[in-house]
Amino acid sequence: MVGKEMLRVLEESSLPVEELRLWASDRSAGEKLQFRGQSLTVELLEPSAFLAGRAHYSLYATSANLSAEYAPLAASRGAICIDNSSHFRMNPDVPLVVPEVNPLSIHEGMKSGIIANPNCSTIQLVVCLKPIHDRAKLRRVIVSSYQSVSGAGAEAIKEFEEQARQSVNGEAYESKVFTKKIAFNCIPHIDVFQANGMTKEEMKIILESRKILGIPDLRITATAVRVPVKVGHAESVNVETERPLTVLEMQELLAKAPGVIVVDKPSELHYPTPQECVGKNEVFVGRIRTDESAPNSMHLWVVADNLRKGAATNAVQIAEYCIVHSLSRRDD
Amino acid sequence: MVGKEMLRVLEESSLPVEELRLWASDRSAGEKLQFRGQSLTVELLEPSAFLAGRAHYSLYATSANLSAEYAPLAASRGAICIDNSSHFRMNPDVPLVVPEVNPLSIHEGMKSGIIANPNCSTIQLVVCLKPIHDRAKLRRVIVSSYQSVSGAGAEAIKEFEEQARQSVNGEAYESKVFTKKIAFNCIPHIDVFQANGMTKEEMKIILESRKILGIPDLRITATAVRVPVKVGHAESVNVETERPLTVLEMQELLAKAPGVIVVDKPSELHYPTPQECVGKNEVFVGRIRTDESAPNSMHLWVVADNLRKGAATNAVQIAEYCIVHSLSRRDD
Repeated sequence: MVGKEMLRVLEESSLPVEELRLWASDRSAGEKLQFRGQSLTVELLEPSAFLAGRAHYSLYATSANLSAEYAPLAASRGAICIDNSSHFRMNPDVPLVVPEVNPLSIHEGMKSGIIANPNCSTIQLVVCLKPIHDRAKLRRVIVSSYQSVSGAGAEAIKEFEEQARQSVNGEAYESKVFTKKIAFNCIPHIDVFQANGMTKEEMKIILESRKILGIPDLRITATAVRVPVKVGHAESVNVETERPLTVLEMQELLAKAPGVIVVDKPSELHYPTPQECVGKNEVFVGRIRTDESAPNSMHLWVVADNLRKGAATNAVQIAEYCIVHSLSRRDD
Repeated sequence: MVGKEMLRVLEESSLPVEELRLWASDRSAGEKLQFRGQSLTVELLEPSAFLAGRAHYSLYATSANLSAEYAPLAASRGAICIDNSSHFRMNPDVPLVVPEVNPLSIHEGMKSGIIANPNCSTIQLVVCLKPIHDRAKLRRVIVSSYQSVSGAGAEAIKEFEEQARQSVNGEAYESKVFTKKIAFNCIPHIDVFQANGMTKEEMKIILESRKILGIPDLRITATAVRVPVKVGHAESVNVETERPLTVLEMQELLAKAPGVIVVDKPSELHYPTPQECVGKNEVFVGRIRTDESAPNSMHLWVVADNLRKGAATNAVQIAEYCIVHSLSRRDD
């Protein structure tokens, strides 16, 4: 799902694409996809292609295993590899980048040639946390997520749609991708469980946020929940800061922040919902209000298209940054 | 929806019901409902019936306006009125009761004859908070809710089912009950907005929890979100206590608590989901784990059937308490 979204975002971007080649497993190889008026045939992913070719950019929407295998191949041939998998994210030699937050880290990626794209839930969160930290210094962050089914891939969407149809028609259902029925249900379990009782998804939100924001000791915690929504992740975020902020100050600083759109006039029913953010590249914030249960605390409701800003858009933005700043790993 | 669920819970209970009469608006009057082998005809709700009759118990699953009008009528004739609406909840002369938490308050209700049944999200929360407070003293509570459509009534369920069918079939949809599309979406808006930016639902969770727990200054906050689930509310709860608790201690104290069932073995995929709690009278807790971002803090995932423990079951339990403790407002 992220791969196809990358193609769409790339098509909409102003990036000068001389030549574009697409690779996938044998499930998709042979498929024809349109890009800027051209018909491109998806090729079968195999190491020989990566060793023969010399791409300027190589974007990955693959499993951690495949990224681990293929990104170093392309990097060794001079490509800037932007990887959406979790494989390289916490590697100290690989920058983990959200261009609105830590663009300068992109330069560090020229050495290894690999830049990691963060987890979807993390991206939309840090885009909001960064301007808050710069203004008022973060003291503690508590996140409860409402994550859509598309975050689990195309098979998950298929299972969800089938279960929804079965539920509507009163038929029996089956769960293969998810551990429990996802249609008309919420599952507090994304990725595998860790020894500390947290899921890997929850730990990604914690550890990746710290790395991207450059605050190794940031006090942050999360509960990650899958909800029966196709596309669009939402987060209920509680933020405590060193310095106090009024609701108006918070609204203004987020409205000015790059990549953020404030949708926050409850009296006119203006607050973001996942469905309204589908296909958008920005992060949407609403329900900004004071949490009176602790000093300097506020609530935010943060929504983004997890396939776009949460994955494809962020990866393409990294490539755009390289081009605008003339970063290259090849001499030609 | 709550009215019909009350009938089912009452039928399953061991309460000795001599005579049961049912009232509703003209939409439902005339309908025949089964109760313990008898067929009962729903009567049209009008003041004359309440002034003529002399019930021992009078249960309300009505709007705040109707409860305000009818509960005092029945109470004036000696009935113990158990009201599920929000009308009397914060009235200092009316006890707000969750039998597992503050059963003794029921006795205070004998004066006015009215006992208020709390908001669904509040009930499942305080059933868990009470034993934690007794053991470790609550310092702060942060709730993000995942509330099902049935909490908004029968029309809401109808709209949700229609929208789900329309979405599955790729047809256009309409939203009348909800402010935005609820099928395949999350709406961070339940009940009306208040001047402080919180919704009334969020303030109910805050204010009602304080009243039921008897902690007027409890530091508690909430974000209430409607999710596309038919029945069953879930809550992501962050609890900070005065005294530290281990995960095992928390699991054990909740397992022993009345009305709570701990479902918490992640390695075996044991955690509660809304769908699995439908039709159950208890509150289910899982995902119990330490929040390392603050001292003495833990996460809980709390799920219950909002029509059962969140409404009907709680009301019937109050009546059961009165009978077991021989509380009555009539001499006969």
